[in-house]
Amino acid sequence: MLPPALDKLATLLARLPGVGKRSGLRWAFYILEQPASYGQGLAQAISETLTHVKFCNECHHLSETEVCGICRDPARRTGELCVVESVADLLALERTGSFRGRFHVLHGAIAPLKGIGPGQLRLANLAERIRRDEVREVIVATSADVEGDATALYLAKTLAPLGIALSRIATGVPTGGELEYLDDHTLSRALAGRTRLG
Amino acid sequence: MLPPALDKLATLLARLPGVGKRSGLRWAFYILEQPASYGQGLAQAISETLTHVKFCNECHHLSETEVCGICRDPARRTGELCVVESVADLLALERTGSFRGRFHVLHGAIAPLKGIGPGQLRLANLAERIRRDEVREVIVATSADVEGDATALYLAKTLAPLGIALSRIATGVPTGGELEYLDDHTLSRALAGRTRLG
Repeated sequence: MLPPALDKLATLLARLPGVGKRSGLRWAFYILEQPASYGQGLAQAISETLTHVKFCNECHHLSETEVCGICRDPARRTGELCVVESVADLLALERTGSFRGRFHVLHGAIAPLKGIGPGQLRLANLAERIRRDEVREVIVATSADVEGDATALYLAKTLAPLGIALSRIATGVPTGGELEYLDDHTLSRALAGRTRLG
Repeated sequence: MLPPALDKLATLLARLPGVGKRSGLRWAFYILEQPASYGQGLAQAISETLTHVKFCNECHHLSETEVCGICRDPARRTGELCVVESVADLLALERTGSFRGRFHVLHGAIAPLKGIGPGQLRLANLAERIRRDEVREVIVATSADVEGDATALYLAKTLAPLGIALSRIATGVPTGGELEYLDDHTLSRALAGRTRLG
């Protein structure tokens, strides 16, 4: 009972992660109700993203150029390299403003149960970057879960021959976290990773 | 730190109702990660919707033609006209398969506090439709809230001179609704609308 174009739009929107049929339809209506410039802008932004956005040849971050803005920024320290699982993780770290080195985005984590091994990660040029840029420390910022652990372990093993400092970001109680409500795993990690007070 | 096209896409997606910055960004990534055909299809569906989807001249339902499929369907009874607030409400009624007449979509409800009066609703051709199609019964299916009530009242007043049967869909306890958990207003309405058992 819906015009075919609108029906197709609703169906495609419903395929976005976490979106259902009802929201897809609601947004299709919304796009139709807005001034046409909104929908036109949206369609154009999608097309331009597909055409122009690629991955940085160096760190595999998203970029419209061969090498991304972070890798080209002379103010970023070349001696520190932070390895992350995803672009979203890179952005989260960038928001903190606490890291002034460069990144390396793996686009995944080792997950044997999902059939993802090191070969599926963007690892090919990592050792070469470390050597060429004379990286002194590699900071592994993979997630604090089984897959992040497996990936960190793999990196520790394969990068050991390069003789660089290798660290992993701390796991523990998050700011504002009440011990009472934390899961056992986080608490165990926080205990194991305790630091000297006095 | 994001490519401009992707950043714009994320911003536009975040403007969809109920969507925030984080989801907008997540979906922009998703569109980029999918096979290009998905994003291309989405952009095309938006463009086609904007170009082809209009409102039915008769009932104001969405349509790619001057008169929509429901109004053109000879199997639909012309004697029954169901007045709804929105296309979403029309679709909900259509899903039940319980109504075989035609619709009239107001695209809103009377809401003085929001500055919406009868003049903002698609009422101009309603009386004319009723006369021309020899409608015997108008079923008012506006929402069971203050605005829906005001709209129903207005319709009752303005359509009275036409001498047709006018009804409103029942309000009361929904199927599976436990009285204990129902709000007072629904219960009051259910009491007031009680029907004879024996």
